Formats: sequence, C-alpha cells, structure tokens
Amino acid sequence: MLGENVRVLQQLFSPSVQHTLDLIGIFVFAISGALLAVRKNFDVFGIAVLAEVTACGGGLFRDLVIGAVPPAAFTDLGYFVTPLLAATLVIFLHPQVERIQAAVNVFDAAGLGLFCVAGTIKAYEYGLGLTASACLGLATAVGGGVLRDVLANEVPSLLRWDRDLYAVPAIVGSALVALCIRYDVLTAFTSGAAVITAFVLRLLAMRYHWRAPRAWHRRSTVREE
Amino acid sequence: MLGENVRVLQQLFSPSVQHTLDLIGIFVFAISGALLAVRKNFDVFGIAVLAEVTACGGGLFRDLVIGAVPPAAFTDLGYFVTPLLAATLVIFLHPQVERIQAAVNVFDAAGLGLFCVAGTIKAYEYGLGLTASACLGLATAVGGGVLRDVLANEVPSLLRWDRDLYAVPAIVGSALVALCIRYDVLTAFTSGAAVITAFVLRLLAMRYHWRAPRAWHRRSTVREE
Amino acid sequence: MLGENVRVLQQLFSPSVQHTLDLIGIFVFAISGALLAVRKNFDVFGIAVLAEVTACGGGLFRDLVIGAVPPAAFTDLGYFVTPLLAATLVIFLHPQVERIQAAVNVFDAAGLGLFCVAGTIKAYEYGLGLTASACLGLATAVGGGVLRDVLANEVPSLLRWDRDLYAVPAIVGSALVALCIRYDVLTAFTSGAAVITAFVLRLLAMRYHWRAPRAWHRRSTVREE
Repeated sequence: MLGENVRVLQQLFSPSVQHTLDLIGIFVFAISGALLAVRKNFDVFGIAVLAEVTACGGGLFRDLVIGAVPPAAFTDLGYFVTPLLAATLVIFLHPQVERIQAAVNVFDAAGLGLFCVAGTIKAYEYGLGLTASACLGLATAVGGGVLRDVLANEVPSLLRWDRDLYAVPAIVGSALVALCIRYDVLTAFTSGAAVITAFVLRLLAMRYHWRAPRAWHRRSTVREE
Repeated sequence: MLGENVRVLQQLFSPSVQHTLDLIGIFVFAISGALLAVRKNFDVFGIAVLAEVTACGGGLFRDLVIGAVPPAAFTDLGYFVTPLLAATLVIFLHPQVERIQAAVNVFDAAGLGLFCVAGTIKAYEYGLGLTASACLGLATAVGGGVLRDVLANEVPSLLRWDRDLYAVPAIVGSALVALCIRYDVLTAFTSGAAVITAFVLRLLAMRYHWRAPRAWHRRSTVREE
Repeated sequence: MLGENVRVLQQLFSPSVQHTLDLIGIFVFAISGALLAVRKNFDVFGIAVLAEVTACGGGLFRDLVIGAVPPAAFTDLGYFVTPLLAATLVIFLHPQVERIQAAVNVFDAAGLGLFCVAGTIKAYEYGLGLTASACLGLATAVGGGVLRDVLANEVPSLLRWDRDLYAVPAIVGSALVALCIRYDVLTAFTSGAAVITAFVLRLLAMRYHWRAPRAWHRRSTVREE
C-alpha cells in the first residue's frame, strides 16, 4: 500500500506547514458553524457543538470510510481545541464577525481548497482508487457543512440551487490532485496549485453568483411552444 | 469466522450475476433519490449527491458497522458511476420518469428485496449473529432512503404512518435469509425466494395500501365509552 | 495499549452489574425515542426504529470512532431487544407513560450519567487520549438523542437554548472520569460518584430550569445605552 508514490506524498509539505494549514481550515469552518448556530438561537453549548461538527465532520467521515480509526479529530488535540476557540470568538463578537462576513467567506473558500486537496491525498495514501480518493476529498471539504445544516434542521446549502457554486470548486480541486497522482506529477507545487484553483474558483463563484442549472424543465419548454 | 457455511454463501450466485443485481438495485434507488431532489428544486449537483447517497448510503452504513473498510461503495467504480447515470437520466427526462412512477416503484421494490437479502448475507459472512445480520440487511435496504429524506429535510417516509408498508417486506426478507442460514438451507434457490417474497410483499402493500397501525390510542377509546 | 490501569478499569464493576446498568440506560433512552415517535404520529415500526436509534445511536457512534467493530449494539442481543420492549410498552401504554413523564425524566437523567461515564471508560480502554475519551463519553450520552431529533426532523433539543441543561451534566461526568484516570484514582467508588454527579446535576437543571446563555448580544447592549 505504501509505495514510492506515497512516500513522496507524505513529504509534500513539512508536517508543521501541513498542520498549520489544516488548523486554519478547521478554524474558518468552525466560524461558519458557530455563526449559523447564533442565527438559529442555540445556546453556547449548541454553538460549540455546531462549530466542532462543521469543522471536523468532513474529516471524521473520511477517516471512518478509509479505516483510519481513531480519526484524526480525536487524536490531535489541536483539531478539538481550535473549533472551541472559534466558537468563543463568535459568542462574544458575533456582530463584528457577521460584519466581516465577506472576509469569513474568503477564509471558508481557502478551507474548501485545502480540505479537498488534503482529503484526496489522505484517502489515496490509505489505498483507495483515484476516483474514490477524489470523492472522499470532496466529502472532506463539504461534509462538515452538510452535517452543520442537517443538525440545524435546514436543507443543506450544498444542495440548494439558489446558492453560489460550492461543490464544483472542490470537485475541480480533488480531480486535479487525482490527475496529478495518475500522471506522477504530484508535488508541493502542483498540489498547491490545486488548492489555489479551488480557492479562486470559489471566490469567482461568489463574486459573479455562478449557479448550477436545475433539472431540465422539458414540460415548461413544451408549454411555451 | 469463515466456515463451510460461509463458503457456500459465497457460491450462491456467480459473481457477475450478483454484481448485476446489485447495480440494478443501486440504479433504481438512485432514481428515487434524484426524483426527490428534482421535486425539492436542487441543482444538478444536488441531484447527483442525493442519487449517490440514496443508492449507496445503506450499504455504506452496513460496511462501516461490520468493519468492511473501505466500503464497497468506494472500491467498486460501478457503484459510483451507476447513480450518476441515474441522476443524468432524471435531469434530462424527469417528467417522463415521473410519468412512469409506477414502473419506478416496481423497480424500487425489487431493489428493496435484493438489498435486504444481500445485506443480511454479507453481514453474516463478516461474523455477525443471525439477528444482527437480519437487522443490517434491513438497514442496507432502507438506510439509503432514510439518509435521502434527512438530507432533503423531510421526515423519513420509512417512519410515517401514512405510507404503504416499506420496512415490513424488508424485515420479512431478511428474517427468511436468517432462518435459512440457521437451518442450513441457504441456497441460490432459497435466497432467491426470499428476494421474491420481499418484492411481492412490497408490491402488494402498494397495491392494497397496506399500512402499519399507530400507537394504541387508549385515551380516545376511553372517550368513546 | 492494555496496561495495569486498564485492567483495573475492567474490574470496576462485575460484568453483570455493568451490563444491567447499561440495559437500564438503553431502556430509558428508548422510552424517550418511542414517546417522540408517538407524538410525531409514526406507525409502530417507526416507533421501534426511533426507540432503537435513540437507545443505541450514541454507543454506535462511539464504537465506530474507536474502531470497536462490530459495535456492541450489534453483538449483544440485549441491546437490540431492550429498545423493542420499550417501544412495545409505549405503543400500548403511551398515555400512562406520558403521565409519568417526570419519572421517565429521572430515568433519562440516570441513563445520561451512566452512559457518559461508561463511554469515557470504554474510549480510554481503546487507547484514546483523555480529552478525546471525555468527548466520546459525552457523545455516547447525547448522541442517541441527537439522532432521534434529526430523524424526527426537529432541531436537536441538545442545541436549543430553551431547554434545561443536558450536555453540561454529561460533560461534568465525563470530565470527572478523565480526571480520575489522569490521577490514577478511578475505582468503582469514584466512577460511581461521577455517575451520581451527572445524574444529580441533570435533576437540578430540570428542577430549577437551569439554562445556558446564548451568544452575547453586544448589539442590543449598545442599543440600550
């Protein structure tokens, strides 16, 4: 399972850089969970729970699927404490945080890019195929947000047509990494490029309100004829 | 863990027949997920996600519980591509697909029968007891539909009293397989009979609107006296 | 992984006492799930499913995370049958059960105390750190209730500000166990004391309607100046 290719993967970033990037992603996802909890009128414990679930849910799902138990969310104290810090920040400063929602969205886009790339690489390291790895990269990036919305009893914003593209940038990022692995060109540079591609695509989607089409309404077309 | 009994189980169907039956079940479950996504006004990515979750969710849950990681949904490309095909079909042809809802329901009943039997057998192969295996067979058959409804923010139709019996046919099918294993008479013939029993029971439940009773309203009885 | 400390843990209670306590916790959680199902107008199968999920969901999540597969809920027949008994009881006697809601709440508080302590100990036995073990103890105690509310399509009562404290007693119980392990003083006596502390805190929270604060509404404060 651990071949030449994988050893290269593990050397992509120095562990401390990788870890710092992870924690930044965790932090911004936790902010988005905590903000939704405030809007839903949850108490401080509900805010903390939703921050944890949003930040760690995607990675937890990935780790259960690839058999990496106990999951990183439960073995690395930083993954546990960072969402609590984010929750505390939101509890005391949520009007200020909401006012800088634009900045939060930029960080969330960065988290999306980081997680889809890191998730794809980790799944491949555990022996999954390229397509499955890319899927798990996507699940890592968007899973926490889906759990957040399910717990808040809302339709996951990932699925709604009236939201700017969110899954597509992560799909592109994950697919780029899978292609790089396939053609043996995954380096710190190319995986960084994948992160940035997903990040920029998400920023553009928000800026220009790119949306995905819905199902083809053949019936209404017929009616207009 | 792998005794005589199990080796027999594995020879029940030729691998290709088993796989084809699985893919048919996956396909029809994906259709039901995609149709709900269209009704909920999701975009094309939401439709694809709901198709994947409905089709693979039950088996994914079973595989996590029995420790079969990575789950089949992530190791077999067919399990991933088939729901995408179903989603594409629904996106372009959903009025036609809805018009043949009766046919879709028949296929869904077939999927229910196939999955409850296959799920029970796989769980037993992984060393679970007969009762637990039957439960996981039921979970395999109905789990995807429950996840579908949770993601669509609806009360799972499995639990609602105003829907025709859905769990009971799957329970009967799973229990029949467990009994066959118990009395050492599980063959391709008897497991096929279990599939057909669950399938026919579900068809009859839809045809005659069989419903399960709700809790016994002792209070209202008292009132009428 | 299994040191002196752990062998002591396993001797805390005689297996039969431990098992009986577990089943009592399972039973009262199942009652709460079945009662919600009756209120939501589910049919008898929906009532049974919600009873099972509420009773076994927290432990199932813990076992998946720590890699204890197949989970206890699927290997011990008592864990499966007990919720069915609770569901049957509620189906026939739900007006009477609702009338003794106060008693049910007391038992539920006992289940909360038992599960947070047992969950923390089991997670530690499987090699997790103290903080992670305490988190999983909390998840064991409250996870089933969260799943219950998600399936019933309601905002989890755990997260709502207008409910009496529920997570905090479990957090205190789990943290006490983790501290006892840390300072090597975990005995049947101290872990029993942790159970009782969580239990009494929950009773007090219900009696005096203790609630957690919501996010600090800085904006409204400003308005009043």
